[in-house]
Amino acid sequence: MRHVIGIDLGGTKTAGGIVDGGGNVVFSSSAATPAQSGAAAVLENTAALVRSLQGEALRRSLRVDALGIGSAGVIDSGRGVVVSATDAIRGWAGTALTAELSALTGLPAAALNDVHAHALGESWLGAGAGVPSVLFIGMGTGVGGGYVLDGECIEGASFTAGHVGHFASPFAYEAGEPLACSCGGSGHVEAVASGPAIHALYRRLGGESAADTRGVYRLAADGDPAASEALRRGAAAAGSAIGGLANILDPAVVVVGGGLAFAGPLWWDEMESHTRRELLPPLAALRIVPAQLGTTAAIRGAARRALNLLPAIEGTHV
Amino acid sequence: MRHVIGIDLGGTKTAGGIVDGGGNVVFSSSAATPAQSGAAAVLENTAALVRSLQGEALRRSLRVDALGIGSAGVIDSGRGVVVSATDAIRGWAGTALTAELSALTGLPAAALNDVHAHALGESWLGAGAGVPSVLFIGMGTGVGGGYVLDGECIEGASFTAGHVGHFASPFAYEAGEPLACSCGGSGHVEAVASGPAIHALYRRLGGESAADTRGVYRLAADGDPAASEALRRGAAAAGSAIGGLANILDPAVVVVGGGLAFAGPLWWDEMESHTRRELLPPLAALRIVPAQLGTTAAIRGAARRALNLLPAIEGTHV
Repeated sequence: MRHVIGIDLGGTKTAGGIVDGGGNVVFSSSAATPAQSGAAAVLENTAALVRSLQGEALRRSLRVDALGIGSAGVIDSGRGVVVSATDAIRGWAGTALTAELSALTGLPAAALNDVHAHALGESWLGAGAGVPSVLFIGMGTGVGGGYVLDGECIEGASFTAGHVGHFASPFAYEAGEPLACSCGGSGHVEAVASGPAIHALYRRLGGESAADTRGVYRLAADGDPAASEALRRGAAAAGSAIGGLANILDPAVVVVGGGLAFAGPLWWDEMESHTRRELLPPLAALRIVPAQLGTTAAIRGAARRALNLLPAIEGTHV
Repeated sequence: MRHVIGIDLGGTKTAGGIVDGGGNVVFSSSAATPAQSGAAAVLENTAALVRSLQGEALRRSLRVDALGIGSAGVIDSGRGVVVSATDAIRGWAGTALTAELSALTGLPAAALNDVHAHALGESWLGAGAGVPSVLFIGMGTGVGGGYVLDGECIEGASFTAGHVGHFASPFAYEAGEPLACSCGGSGHVEAVASGPAIHALYRRLGGESAADTRGVYRLAADGDPAASEALRRGAAAAGSAIGGLANILDPAVVVVGGGLAFAGPLWWDEMESHTRRELLPPLAALRIVPAQLGTTAAIRGAARRALNLLPAIEGTHV
């Protein structure tokens, strides 16, 4: 069986794995992303990780035939180019991701957005396996997502689809004014429902002792009023958004991942109850489940695209 | 060239047309829907319209080979059955739409939801023709829509997709309380952005002279404060929703239809400006255009599904 390498390239960490045609991660490793050193350094860092995985494959007598990269930023998966990106990786926009990494590693390469890769991985092998349509929602430092239909993630006309954090939420208003959002807009879901937004709300409510979102969760579990309120409002905003999206997309299953999805029942139960109260009657039986693949989801989703590069005759993976 | 019959079956009116393989409506007619007389009467009324169109085709020496029905309600297009429906047509839920109409007319039949048919028609031959993805939004008595990807409308796992009127909107709150929505929920886009919602808001703002939404528009055009405010808020809610949806779906084009889309620039300009202020930077050039096919969109979309029933060798229409 042939193997490919899948990469999850984020602003903090670059993780990679040797993946077989069935999506099993045979071996994985990761390295810090030199995000502030510019695109060339990030590419070389990624190539070094790939070469190390190629070496490991060799030691295991495995043949690696292609490379798939799930990367931060808006990625034109047709051309393999970073269309635009935030400052999380300096100078990332414009990078010819697949051409450069092919040249550096000798492997044919495919690339897509990291959240799209994550959604694809979960729908291929995780909590969304075996159903025709999956709405993946990632609730963590940011709020993102992807809609997978018949096995393919909908990337959109500008490769921007899935930005589920950036639509108006009634929960993202205080005293009639919209909260500022990371995108430059305001009043969006992400501005109230992300991990940092929950922590910031806790601070605005007078909370002082929790240093981060995890701390807010722990305090909420102990009954702290500010922490409970902040967590509740973030979870309610998430649920309201997820329920509305389900009405629009009518997926066979909703898969919720990211740090908040695994924070505990205080967040999950509030999120799910707000999701369900939004649903139209025909969707009453909608399944809402936690993601299953953790950090390997994006590696597997990227690997899936690499497998697509292999000649059709090898296509036993589909 | 073979022809088919497309039907747009709504709670008030049933319209039908003889449609050729290129989507041209050769002849059309319509009849009131006996919505309160029950499913059997509605089916017989539809069959009578189809037979009259078959007669017209005969007079024109045209051969009609199939029937497509776009119907109000949640329609299982695979089985051709009405899964659920509002009271707009009494006893409509459970109706075996394609089986019954095939038996009554002798034609093979396909069925889908009327708004899905509308979206399909506009993307096939109207304002969304020639692009890979179309977000259709209908703004009228209700707020509905459909997302057409690679020529097919995404109907959803429960055939409920496209209910864009039923997600939370910050504009659907008054004094901190969500407005009641037609779906039984509250705080939804439709509760503030539909035509009746705009008229109701005008009344709540103290307006008395406008008898309907058209009247509100006319008064707003004359500078009436309550009418202007109601229209502005409805249009802002619509734009906010459309912009957020564009961030999530990233369509090649947004097509806006329904009565409000053609009310005039007071509504359209406010809607478009609120849409654009929501958009993520990569979507800045998004095209937002009015629908082009008017009432024939759903007839043509239904006809498209009927054409799919014809043997592949006839498939010159694709």
